[in-house]
Formats: sequence, C-alpha cells, structure tokens
Amino acid sequence: MTATVKLFSSWFCPFAQRAWLALLEKGVEFEYNEIDPYNKTKEFLTINPRGLVPVIVNDGKCVYESAVCIEYVDEAWPDGPSLLPKDPYERAQARIWADFITKKIVPKFYMALQRQTRPEQEEAMEAILTALIELSGAMSTEGPFFGGQNFGLVDIMLVPFTIRFEILSHYRSFAVPQTDTFARFRRWMEACHARDSVKATLSTKEKYIAIYKRYENNSAQTEVADAIRKGTTLP
Amino acid sequence: MTATVKLFSSWFCPFAQRAWLALLEKGVEFEYNEIDPYNKTKEFLTINPRGLVPVIVNDGKCVYESAVCIEYVDEAWPDGPSLLPKDPYERAQARIWADFITKKIVPKFYMALQRQTRPEQEEAMEAILTALIELSGAMSTEGPFFGGQNFGLVDIMLVPFTIRFEILSHYRSFAVPQTDTFARFRRWMEACHARDSVKATLSTKEKYIAIYKRYENNSAQTEVADAIRKGTTLP
Repeated sequence: MTATVKLFSSWFCPFAQRAWLALLEKGVEFEYNEIDPYNKTKEFLTINPRGLVPVIVNDGKCVYESAVCIEYVDEAWPDGPSLLPKDPYERAQARIWADFITKKIVPKFYMALQRQTRPEQEEAMEAILTALIELSGAMSTEGPFFGGQNFGLVDIMLVPFTIRFEILSHYRSFAVPQTDTFARFRRWMEACHARDSVKATLSTKEKYIAIYKRYENNSAQTEVADAIRKGTTLP
Repeated sequence: MTATVKLFSSWFCPFAQRAWLALLEKGVEFEYNEIDPYNKTKEFLTINPRGLVPVIVNDGKCVYESAVCIEYVDEAWPDGPSLLPKDPYERAQARIWADFITKKIVPKFYMALQRQTRPEQEEAMEAILTALIELSGAMSTEGPFFGGQNFGLVDIMLVPFTIRFEILSHYRSFAVPQTDTFARFRRWMEACHARDSVKATLSTKEKYIAIYKRYENNSAQTEVADAIRKGTTLP
C-alpha cells in the first residue's frame, strides 16, 4: 500500500463518480485529478488513449470503464467492506442488475435530456420509471440498499444518476411519483443520498444545472452525448 | 455437486454459446435444454421472464446475461480451470476487453447482416476489422489466447462471433485480410476454433446460413434484431 493511487475524474461525470465512490467506500487513499473532458491534456491521453474518465492508476497500471473500476477496487483492496457479495449466485444477481442499469436507465437519462421534442422526452422518462419499478422488485425487502445492509455495486452504479434526477426535474419536470409503487425505491434513494461517500462526491444543484445545459440543448460534444444523438452504443 | 445444473440455450445463438462454453470448459455436468426463441414455452418464461437465452439454473436458482454467466460459472465451480486471471489488475483488463467486444464488435456484426445498403454493411464490417486490430494489440504476445495459455473470459466472449464470420462471408463477402496486421488475430482464431469446447458447441455452416437468413433480410423478430433496427441498446 505504498504505491500512489490516482483517480482521474470530472466533477460532473456520473461514470467517474462511480469509481470515486468505490475508492471512498473501501477507504483507499488516493490523489484526485480533475480532467476537463472538453480540453483533455496530452498527459491524460497518454494514460488513457480512449480519453474517457474515470481512470484509476495504481502503481502505474491503468484501469478504466466505471463498472470495471468498481470490481477492481473491490478486488485490489480486499480488506475494506465488500462491494460485492461473497456468494457466486448473489454476485451474479448484483452484476445482472448493474447491467440492467447500464442498458435500461443510463441511456434513457441522456435521452430525456438531449431529445428536443416533448413526446420523446416523456417516453424516455416513462422508461426510467418503468425500469425503477423492475429494479425495486429485485431489491432486498429489508434494505435499505439493493442487497440489504451493505452499500455495493448496484447502488454505486445507480446513485450518480438518481443524484442527477434534479437536473431532469429542472429541465424536464421529471419526478418520482409519491405512490406506494415507488416506496421501496424512495427508501433506497434516501439511504443512498444520505451516505457520506455520496455527499463527498457531490457538487451543487446550481453547478449541475449549469453544466448539463449542454446536454439539455443537445450541444454537448462528449462521446456519451454523441452516441445518444447517433443512436449508437454508449462508450 | 448433487444439484442438477440446467442450461437453457438456442443452438444458433452466440450469447447462449458463451454460457455453454463456460460450462464445458469448467467440466460442469449439466442438462442441455433447447429453447426456440420464436416460440418460447410458458415453462421457460417462468424461469426467465425476460425470455432470453442463455439461462443457467443451478439448484433452482437462475442466472442469465451471457457475460454474467461466464463469471458465475467461474466462481460457482472454483475447482475447474480459471476463466479469469487471479490478479485484480489482470481481471480488470479481461473485463475491459470483454466490454469492448460487447460495445464495438457485437452490434457491428448484426448491423453488417441486417443493414440493407452496401455502404452501411461495409461501414459495419470496417468497424469490426478496426476493433479486431485494437483488440489484437491488447492480446498477450505469446498467446495463443487473449491472456496467454489459458482460454478464458475474453476468448469466450468473442469466439461465438468469429465462428459466425462465415455467415458474414457468405452473405456480405466479409474476410479477415491475410496481412501482418491481422496475424495475431488469425493465430488467436485458429487456436480458439480448434478447441474441443468450441467444436462441441457448433452447428454446420449450412444450418447457420439458413437460420441467419432472417437477419440478412432483416426480418428476424428477436430482441437483438429489433434493437439493431431501432438503434437502441442491445438486450
């Protein structure tokens, strides 16, 4: 543990927040490096030729892709609290639902912001709510987190997006209904949003709303924004 | 190991072949159940409400999503040969390149078949070749497999698609160039295609070509085919 760990992140990026949360949850000491995705340095492009955050550099070795970073942190620092269950079946369940978030929630979040007609925005927001109902049905009943008492992979995959629901609320009048259907999800969200690691990786609502203007008017020049415009696979 | 393991698969499905390969490589005893994705039984929909293959049922518990199935098999039967490396950084690399195959190769395979204009087909096939060059650069130099001597996650993710290149060759004149650029990839492909598990999970070229006609004329009514048509996330 003498090696220096570096996180390359962008303050507003939900994918980078995942790696950041994992490092904090495991109690890893690291150096935070802010990257401007609109103005990438040569140094950063040497570290990750794909130019995407997050990147975790540990002892000179680079790990990227947010979901991979979470499992990497869990495995490289086995002494901290586990981010995945121990049982193979439970681990598979966590990965199935992490994948569900990637496929069914993340693209719809960006579509709700970037699409320029109200019916398309509403369709995307409906899809998010439908997915949240399905995900809630897979959550442990005791809770409060996906798998019970332990905050882990599925929670870390989702919380950067539920934190950013306030951006959708501001620009698109998105709201999670105050109905029984969403009771389990709201309990999950309250517990997650109150967590120290989540609060430590947050910016202010005003700053989020300002920077996501580029998504809202569909002018953002990131790879994520571009993939949503073209209808291709997210990076 | 007294519990019965069942694999629900479709003979022509590359995703199902991944789970099938993982079970064979680990030497797991299992019962093969053929599912017709065009005519799903009620029994199968009870097992997996999403209706997608592969599904592995172990002691009554269901695991699905092909990449999740591979890691599950590796973890649930730890005594067999490892499908992932032991070192956390090496594991992360395997997952990064497994994800690369999902994002950069799989959608292009279906686009090359389903798109109905030659420029679109060529664009998709060029993208496959570009991705193969990038992937080859990440392969161990000694080989023959992605990570060296051990056949594992990345190999299992990719080989069902390289096996199906003969479908692309037949319908779209696809070919991996006989140049030095593709030498490492061709070495990988030869070693993988000669593997017992791969041969045991194959059908004949004629059968593949016949069933993929539905993709080639873009009439296939599977969720994968539908996602490619709509430009949405693959299931």
